[in-house]
Amino acid sequence: MDYEALFGQAVDTLHAERRYRVFTELARNCGSFPVADNFSGIGPEKITIWCSNDYLGMGQHPAVLAALKQAADQFGAGAGGTRNISGNSHAVVELEAELAALHGKEAALVFMSGYIANQTSLATLARLLPDCIILSDADNHNSMIEGIRQAGCEKKIFRHNDVAHLEELLQAQPAGRPKLVAFESVYSMDGDIAPIHAICDLADKYGAMTYLDEVHAVGLYGDHGGGIADRDQAMHRLHIIQGTLGKAFGVVGGYIAGPKIMVDAVRSYAPAFIFSTAMPPAIAAAATASVRHLRSSQAERTRHQERAATLRRMLLNAGLPVLVNQSHIVPVMVGDAGLCKAASDMLLADHGIYIQPINFPTVPRGTERLRITPSPFHTDAMMQALTRALLDVWQRLGLRREAA
Amino acid sequence: MDYEALFGQAVDTLHAERRYRVFTELARNCGSFPVADNFSGIGPEKITIWCSNDYLGMGQHPAVLAALKQAADQFGAGAGGTRNISGNSHAVVELEAELAALHGKEAALVFMSGYIANQTSLATLARLLPDCIILSDADNHNSMIEGIRQAGCEKKIFRHNDVAHLEELLQAQPAGRPKLVAFESVYSMDGDIAPIHAICDLADKYGAMTYLDEVHAVGLYGDHGGGIADRDQAMHRLHIIQGTLGKAFGVVGGYIAGPKIMVDAVRSYAPAFIFSTAMPPAIAAAATASVRHLRSSQAERTRHQERAATLRRMLLNAGLPVLVNQSHIVPVMVGDAGLCKAASDMLLADHGIYIQPINFPTVPRGTERLRITPSPFHTDAMMQALTRALLDVWQRLGLRREAA
Repeated sequence: MDYEALFGQAVDTLHAERRYRVFTELARNCGSFPVADNFSGIGPEKITIWCSNDYLGMGQHPAVLAALKQAADQFGAGAGGTRNISGNSHAVVELEAELAALHGKEAALVFMSGYIANQTSLATLARLLPDCIILSDADNHNSMIEGIRQAGCEKKIFRHNDVAHLEELLQAQPAGRPKLVAFESVYSMDGDIAPIHAICDLADKYGAMTYLDEVHAVGLYGDHGGGIADRDQAMHRLHIIQGTLGKAFGVVGGYIAGPKIMVDAVRSYAPAFIFSTAMPPAIAAAATASVRHLRSSQAERTRHQERAATLRRMLLNAGLPVLVNQSHIVPVMVGDAGLCKAASDMLLADHGIYIQPINFPTVPRGTERLRITPSPFHTDAMMQALTRALLDVWQRLGLRREAA
Repeated sequence: MDYEALFGQAVDTLHAERRYRVFTELARNCGSFPVADNFSGIGPEKITIWCSNDYLGMGQHPAVLAALKQAADQFGAGAGGTRNISGNSHAVVELEAELAALHGKEAALVFMSGYIANQTSLATLARLLPDCIILSDADNHNSMIEGIRQAGCEKKIFRHNDVAHLEELLQAQPAGRPKLVAFESVYSMDGDIAPIHAICDLADKYGAMTYLDEVHAVGLYGDHGGGIADRDQAMHRLHIIQGTLGKAFGVVGGYIAGPKIMVDAVRSYAPAFIFSTAMPPAIAAAATASVRHLRSSQAERTRHQERAATLRRMLLNAGLPVLVNQSHIVPVMVGDAGLCKAASDMLLADHGIYIQPINFPTVPRGTERLRITPSPFHTDAMMQALTRALLDVWQRLGLRREAA
């Protein structure tokens, strides 16, 4: 049996569909973000990153780095075990208290990634509810989809952000049946935003539990950076809020926050929590410093929104097909995997601009795009250079310019 | 619908079965390992950790901490994105090259935990093999079981380390059918070791692919710390070797190493890899420093084995029910969830000794135990104190003393 040949066929499929992924090898540099070194070509060369999810540049914030280094010096590099077996550090307990406070919840629980937080929490919560049915937004992230699949219970998909459809599905269920509504606030690829209050109204009306993924919103929205639910004053209406420490907070890891007993149930039953080595104290300390900073400082959020609005206006004025939305994400549509990759390659090779092409399975086929994420550190001059570069590439590849 | 009450019932079950887990809140301190501060009681007090999986104390190694801090200063706290979208750092590429070299493989792929490495790699590899059947050791870790479940293909469980049973199952399958044998080298709770060559002989004979979990062996066995397969000179006979950076290497994260095309298939198809934020460069740099150190230094491994042998002898001489095995893990059997917890509580409260009770679901009911992991930093005096403390607790609780 030639196993290598079998896997070779699977990889060949990706080449044939022009969606084989080549990772750009970067060294981000503290103090010069979003400028980085690109190691992918013939040697390190300076490029400007336009697709980072370190949305606010908190990964290079002095308070975050100081906390990380201080905790590493004091406590070491790793946790040394699972949370249950010697890995439960004072630092991670402090981080969980900080996250619970951020979302106005009784408790929080930290994981090594937002992916795991969603996957194991959704699976566990649904398994513990007898005969649960999950109502899931059609555009939910893969980590939620996998968690829902693992729950093994019935699920219904409601059309993306379609409250009427959600109500139709809820209405059809017996009143006494446990129901879990799972959705996101900011959808990362289109940048559109869920109607949280309207969904919570339905959850109240039909007795459903709510689970909101705020990974592309925590740190970025609300007076204290609690996300869209913070901005909309809806945090108290949600049961579970899930977030990440690896995007706006600039570090790594994921979490859930919610009522003490629900968090305790996940803590006690979720296999990917129970059987995983705990977050290192140094990472926890860095994340705590970042959350604390963004709970009190508005400067980063204000500048971030202004930068996103400025870039969106600039690209629209240039006639580029921006997908307009109410968030900080600026997608420029291409609609073809090969052309999207070619555009990205040209931007990098000829303009020193790095924007990873977004192809299937991250977005549906036919909606391939360049997903641009301006940060507080992207200057007007960088935006002008980006606009010129996009226009050049659009012309050379013959891409359509009408607005999306 | 009272959701909190429903989850309350699930948690009450754990209390009723005396397996509700209370996490001990610790601050490990660089330079004084295995002595740590325990925050769980009325305030920080000094205790000795006897159950860490930072087996060699590499989490406090100066080279590891220096690499972590230097990389944080240079590159920041986080990766800023998934591997595909701006998160592929030079540091993580270097780490993967180091891990591939450690195992004598063409390529390696890093994840944020060993749990994820197993779960998403096994699921993905099996899904890509048409009509694959998985042969899985009965004692495989939960992360492998979950990965196999998600693969959705047929599976057969062979009795733990039972080569005859494995052959029986392989024999019953058509020659042309893809088969994946998944097993561990050191089983973490009993500390026994798989017959790797015998299993590879069967894999060769019946044309099966092999997947070996070495998380409790990497760094610890073999001339270069490649694990039991390194010690047994069997690395080249295995397709995929999976390991962790969070135990003997003292940091956090997991990985697979194997043929380039297999690793590329996982890289390209595994959802929990594709959709997760990448490992921070600082963590990758710390892990690289640790792997490099343990590839060339034997001192830690020699001392570690000597310490484990010494403690095992001491406890056996005292008549304590040690489960004897050929590895560095020293389980002392209790056989009851409540008594195991009580023994652990007494050790901590009365002797300043921390050994987490190991109960279901980590081990089968009726085999509850204290799992002791001596490190190079545990002194003879600490071992004598531990022996005295165990004898005291065994007497007060009326636990059986005959050897297991």
